Amino acid sequence: MPDRFSLADVWSALEDLRARRPLVHNITNYVAMSTSANVLLALGAAPAMAHAVEEVEDFVAISDALVINIGTLSPPWVTAMQKAAARAGADGKPWVLDPVGCGATPYRTQAAVALAARAPDIIRGNAAEIMSLAGEAGAGRGVESLSRSEEATRPAAALAARTGAVVAVTGAVDYVTGGGRLVAVHAGHDFMRYSTALGCALSAITAAFTVVRPPPEAALAALAVFGAAGSAAAARCRGPGHFPAEICDELYLMTRETLSRHARIEAASVG
Amino acid sequence: MPDRFSLADVWSALEDLRARRPLVHNITNYVAMSTSANVLLALGAAPAMAHAVEEVEDFVAISDALVINIGTLSPPWVTAMQKAAARAGADGKPWVLDPVGCGATPYRTQAAVALAARAPDIIRGNAAEIMSLAGEAGAGRGVESLSRSEEATRPAAALAARTGAVVAVTGAVDYVTGGGRLVAVHAGHDFMRYSTALGCALSAITAAFTVVRPPPEAALAALAVFGAAGSAAAARCRGPGHFPAEICDELYLMTRETLSRHARIEAASVG
Amino acid sequence: MPDRFSLADVWSALEDLRARRPLVHNITNYVAMSTSANVLLALGAAPAMAHAVEEVEDFVAISDALVINIGTLSPPWVTAMQKAAARAGADGKPWVLDPVGCGATPYRTQAAVALAARAPDIIRGNAAEIMSLAGEAGAGRGVESLSRSEEATRPAAALAARTGAVVAVTGAVDYVTGGGRLVAVHAGHDFMRYSTALGCALSAITAAFTVVRPPPEAALAALAVFGAAGSAAAARCRGPGHFPAEICDELYLMTRETLSRHARIEAASVG
Repeated sequence: MPDRFSLADVWSALEDLRARRPLVHNITNYVAMSTSANVLLALGAAPAMAHAVEEVEDFVAISDALVINIGTLSPPWVTAMQKAAARAGADGKPWVLDPVGCGATPYRTQAAVALAARAPDIIRGNAAEIMSLAGEAGAGRGVESLSRSEEATRPAAALAARTGAVVAVTGAVDYVTGGGRLVAVHAGHDFMRYSTALGCALSAITAAFTVVRPPPEAALAALAVFGAAGSAAAARCRGPGHFPAEICDELYLMTRETLSRHARIEAASVG
Repeated sequence: MPDRFSLADVWSALEDLRARRPLVHNITNYVAMSTSANVLLALGAAPAMAHAVEEVEDFVAISDALVINIGTLSPPWVTAMQKAAARAGADGKPWVLDPVGCGATPYRTQAAVALAARAPDIIRGNAAEIMSLAGEAGAGRGVESLSRSEEATRPAAALAARTGAVVAVTGAVDYVTGGGRLVAVHAGHDFMRYSTALGCALSAITAAFTVVRPPPEAALAALAVFGAAGSAAAARCRGPGHFPAEICDELYLMTRETLSRHARIEAASVG
Repeated sequence: MPDRFSLADVWSALEDLRARRPLVHNITNYVAMSTSANVLLALGAAPAMAHAVEEVEDFVAISDALVINIGTLSPPWVTAMQKAAARAGADGKPWVLDPVGCGATPYRTQAAVALAARAPDIIRGNAAEIMSLAGEAGAGRGVESLSRSEEATRPAAALAARTGAVVAVTGAVDYVTGGGRLVAVHAGHDFMRYSTALGCALSAITAAFTVVRPPPEAALAALAVFGAAGSAAAARCRGPGHFPAEICDELYLMTRETLSRHARIEAASVG
């Protein structure tokens, strides 16, 4: 984790991302594909969705970063995820694991555990998913997290220590941990719980930031930018219906001022 | 079918649903996944999407209700649908069948017929789908229904008698039938024909209501709430583009007043 | 290519399409399915999405046109695409090929080349995809085109000559070529690069127009109508978030005046 990482650093990371326009390879779930592609485009990155075993390694090779999301997994997809993760490791391409629903079923937990063992740069999930992946009996009910993110900071730190990944736990407050340190990000809006696939979209954005920053800074930048977009977007909504579209607009139009007004980063201690 | 079921009863069902926040397991088509998840969240339920044979039964076990929608079926998915339906039956979990495109191709019709034989609590479809599933030569052209819902009330009643399911036929007027009775729901808007996956989303909402009410009341409550949301949403739209997002807002904000203003339930007789 | 094809001809084609309400069978990628269905509905056509080998031929038989899009291909889908294309050829049903990401990986390029050899009526892609499919070393990075459409007019003409298809290359300016002639369409908006699946949606609309016009006119009409909708939609957006919904509204509300204000067709020469 960085000693200091301010919103000025986040803004600098976003400027670098927009200049670079990284290609992010997504192996993600059916529900999240369209939203993930749209937030990446609005952010200034380029998405590619491809999952066939016959081409995932070739796609990793031409991409700048990879996100693997197990939301709607099945055996051929898991095989492709394993191949893509292995290729990313071999090529030194950064990749992010989103263990959607880890803890909900044995099949899902096993797939997440196996992928977490392949050295992802960042793991991002909600409290129940991270607690389950860390080996604790979670409160998982599919993608629904009944736990608060605070309760997962200790398991997240343990997971980070075991896997070498930076771990981001999202909730009302978001936490990033690695190397025994913990940083909190305050941003976002309650509407995020009422609109599907936004956590998945955040994981995709996190992957985009790994192209221009090391994992801890990438995770923090993604949380701050996406959270600020969410907070700004919510002010324009009467309900969650238009929230994803407004988030895309806010990402596209993101300024240093919007970022400062709607996000806050601060050191925290593992609970 | 209930002797009487008023909008006050619908409102009460919605309050119970919001308090319960049921987890609805969706095995649905690719087109409808995101919309189904969003309407469930906006309504106050929690969605899970999972289809792998390796985990569908485990997902049924942790869910409160199940919806099976054959829109983009293929052999591995049909196997998973069969397993999930069997598990729902064994566990006494309510489930809803949406026989999308039944009648369009033999493969699709066979899959729908086989699932209908597994004792769904509710079957929801358009006139052509219900007529085809009831064994009549339908007017099916894929998901396009060229028949009026009125024409399907008799086949729907026969299908209900044969399968034991409550059958909902949707169209300009919606009908719910079971036990030889028929109830009409007047709500909704013509934009529903110009925006994809809204029928599928309605089936998902119907499944959510089965957690808090018996099948006949659940089907009526879902039609009234979703139809009222659609009618209220349409008043804010110049075309169908923003209609799904507005429906989510209306579901999220639904009040007893909106419900009363935009929906009507009345007894009808089988045509 | 037609000797003359004006916006009045485009309008006439749209009127015929709305009167006919053609059923378009889509074998398309997961990201594009919902958007493709919604633009088809808004335009006045009817979408069907089906990909199982067990039913694709039956779906071609009951549909008026077919679009095959390889965006998220895998072996069972490629088999279904081949069967559907063969059946369309046998039945004389028009079909459109969208070679998404051609050039990005060998697997993808081979699939696109094999489908292009099955006599599609129209091939639509961005510059990199068309250049790759024409056998040139493209600048493909997945679905991202780093080439300008002008650079692809000569390869497009060669591809048209080799396959017998009309070829549409889209970009800041769109080009349609066939029989040694080239026509340019000026319409659309830069937001199209910041919202996913709009090229795929255009291919679906192109298929719809093949039901009421021969391939050259169908390609031009689709480009003009979709581009005009995009241009008009952009005027109502502050970013790309609501752009797809606004495009649907504009397609639904499209008038001869909107078309004239926002699109221009003119003869061009192969570069």
